[in-house]
Amino acid sequence: MLLFDTRLAVIALMASLAAPSALAQGNEPIALRDMGSFHVGGRLIEVTGQPTKEVLFTPGGVPAKVDPNGKYQVEQMYAQYFLVQNRKGKLPLLMWHGGGLTGVTYETKPDGNSGWLNYFLRHGWDVYLSDAMERGRSGWTDKFKGDPVFLPLGDPWERFRLGPPGSWNDDKAKRVTYPGVQFPIEAYEQFMKQGVPRWVTTDDQIIAAYVALVDKVCPCVVLAHSQGGPFAFKVAEARPDKVKALVLAEPAGGGSRDKAAALKDVPAVIIFGDNAKEHPRWSKIRQNVHDYAGLIKQAGGSVEVIDLPDIGIKGNTHMMMMDKNSDQVAAVIQKWLVGKGLVD
Amino acid sequence: MLLFDTRLAVIALMASLAAPSALAQGNEPIALRDMGSFHVGGRLIEVTGQPTKEVLFTPGGVPAKVDPNGKYQVEQMYAQYFLVQNRKGKLPLLMWHGGGLTGVTYETKPDGNSGWLNYFLRHGWDVYLSDAMERGRSGWTDKFKGDPVFLPLGDPWERFRLGPPGSWNDDKAKRVTYPGVQFPIEAYEQFMKQGVPRWVTTDDQIIAAYVALVDKVCPCVVLAHSQGGPFAFKVAEARPDKVKALVLAEPAGGGSRDKAAALKDVPAVIIFGDNAKEHPRWSKIRQNVHDYAGLIKQAGGSVEVIDLPDIGIKGNTHMMMMDKNSDQVAAVIQKWLVGKGLVD
Repeated sequence: MLLFDTRLAVIALMASLAAPSALAQGNEPIALRDMGSFHVGGRLIEVTGQPTKEVLFTPGGVPAKVDPNGKYQVEQMYAQYFLVQNRKGKLPLLMWHGGGLTGVTYETKPDGNSGWLNYFLRHGWDVYLSDAMERGRSGWTDKFKGDPVFLPLGDPWERFRLGPPGSWNDDKAKRVTYPGVQFPIEAYEQFMKQGVPRWVTTDDQIIAAYVALVDKVCPCVVLAHSQGGPFAFKVAEARPDKVKALVLAEPAGGGSRDKAAALKDVPAVIIFGDNAKEHPRWSKIRQNVHDYAGLIKQAGGSVEVIDLPDIGIKGNTHMMMMDKNSDQVAAVIQKWLVGKGLVD
Repeated sequence: MLLFDTRLAVIALMASLAAPSALAQGNEPIALRDMGSFHVGGRLIEVTGQPTKEVLFTPGGVPAKVDPNGKYQVEQMYAQYFLVQNRKGKLPLLMWHGGGLTGVTYETKPDGNSGWLNYFLRHGWDVYLSDAMERGRSGWTDKFKGDPVFLPLGDPWERFRLGPPGSWNDDKAKRVTYPGVQFPIEAYEQFMKQGVPRWVTTDDQIIAAYVALVDKVCPCVVLAHSQGGPFAFKVAEARPDKVKALVLAEPAGGGSRDKAAALKDVPAVIIFGDNAKEHPRWSKIRQNVHDYAGLIKQAGGSVEVIDLPDIGIKGNTHMMMMDKNSDQVAAVIQKWLVGKGLVD
């Protein structure tokens, strides 16, 4: 009986220890005045001269004739929106993901904890979360040029700076990480389930679809990650009157150097994680981004570059929105947005 | 001044006319105790003997070496969940879409009005909305057998019974519909933006991923559409203790005839729209489904088949969750669920 009571006490203690962590992860309710989704952009193409096929869509079902000739809808983009009941962000927040991924980037983290979507909803922002043209719920077509790229399990480990160059190993026990890395290493395989194929020939169509989204729902703030960074810069160059602020989490590059001046009235913050300055590939990317930011500043614009370790936030990877301290990084962004007068 | 006042009065009148419709579409707030997403299932495969490639992921960026050899994550499935604050449904409701589509099927309708996801959330159901393995945010691989099927713009028009056989025309003005059709015809092009490629060789992997989902989140009710119907039957055959009830909107077929008896304790309702009995293809599908339902009943099970026109609900297409009267069809489902004691 004493043993049983002790076990109960341990369970109660564990529950009380878990509670503050649950609060820190922001598990309070989310009240929405509406939610929904739509597709924007895209175009119709035409296929001619192909033979009709009989397709058995369901085994044991009834065959259907499919005439592959005709018009096809291609290059549209999917966006899902969450409009909060208690709105504090003055503009909608658009979240754009990086290469080989989808809007899932900002949803629940691979370790099962709440991500940036819920963080910003709980801080009163209307959010539009999209899948880039060609990825996820946007659909894709075999008419894109070239072949899609599929990433092997280990590829992002080093490229996203979970560990230094040469640190990947198929054997979990032999994988090396940067010291104090914030990515939930035990959930790496779960993270890789989020990956989708990508082409490297479709930037123009991706940008066109983002412009269609901006034309539909902005003025807005755009928060973009990795490959989404250069897209956000280029879309803002095309629509500087509609993109009112830019938040870039480790952008993979700048925008168009000859159009950087268009961003002189679009305040931007660029955030890099840990080990980016020293990493052979990321140090170059970081320099490219700095060069582009310099052109904006030269035109009178405002760009702030934050290296997280320089403000005492250590161990963040390229996937900072999935890192264990993602709320801490989100708070840096929220503070910047407050400072720009974008929060009521 | 009089003219201006008249215009204001007209605007006020239009607003007052719009209001009841907005209420009918269920635009009251949605309060969630949590929301999020995850991927389930899938497996690792291995690729060997391929040369390393240099990939320029971002134009003007820094090239990355990609070694295509190694393990790849494939065949996982994406699910997004919405857990309501004021829960009335006794079990989670899983929504499975049809072929060539994604979970978007149940989100905002192509005409911009609220779909079944919001209907069932507003009626107090926890909902898990998934994209079948290979589609949408589940990702896909070039290792599937055979080629994917891409549907031309006009293909679903007749196959989904918006109009009778031979009624499609590229020219909008020349398209013919069934009389009184409930599909929002003006939004047909918008609907086609929701389409994604599909394979016809991947049923086993799709079913395996659905079983993984059921093992994670059930006991539950499964609501499935079209191709999702046979998947739901087969998953319920494999997990009759976890799938507690089945709602089938125009299933594309039955399950496995030799396993139908497994569903003797899983009540099911099957709903067909208008013109299904007479349609050359759908009359056969309907008969296949009836035959399978007969086997369940023979084993002592309960299957109710509702032809909507027989209960006075006319004009519904295969895409009944997108039809203008989708709330009316959802109410038929909700009533059946209440009747089965699944609502508090």
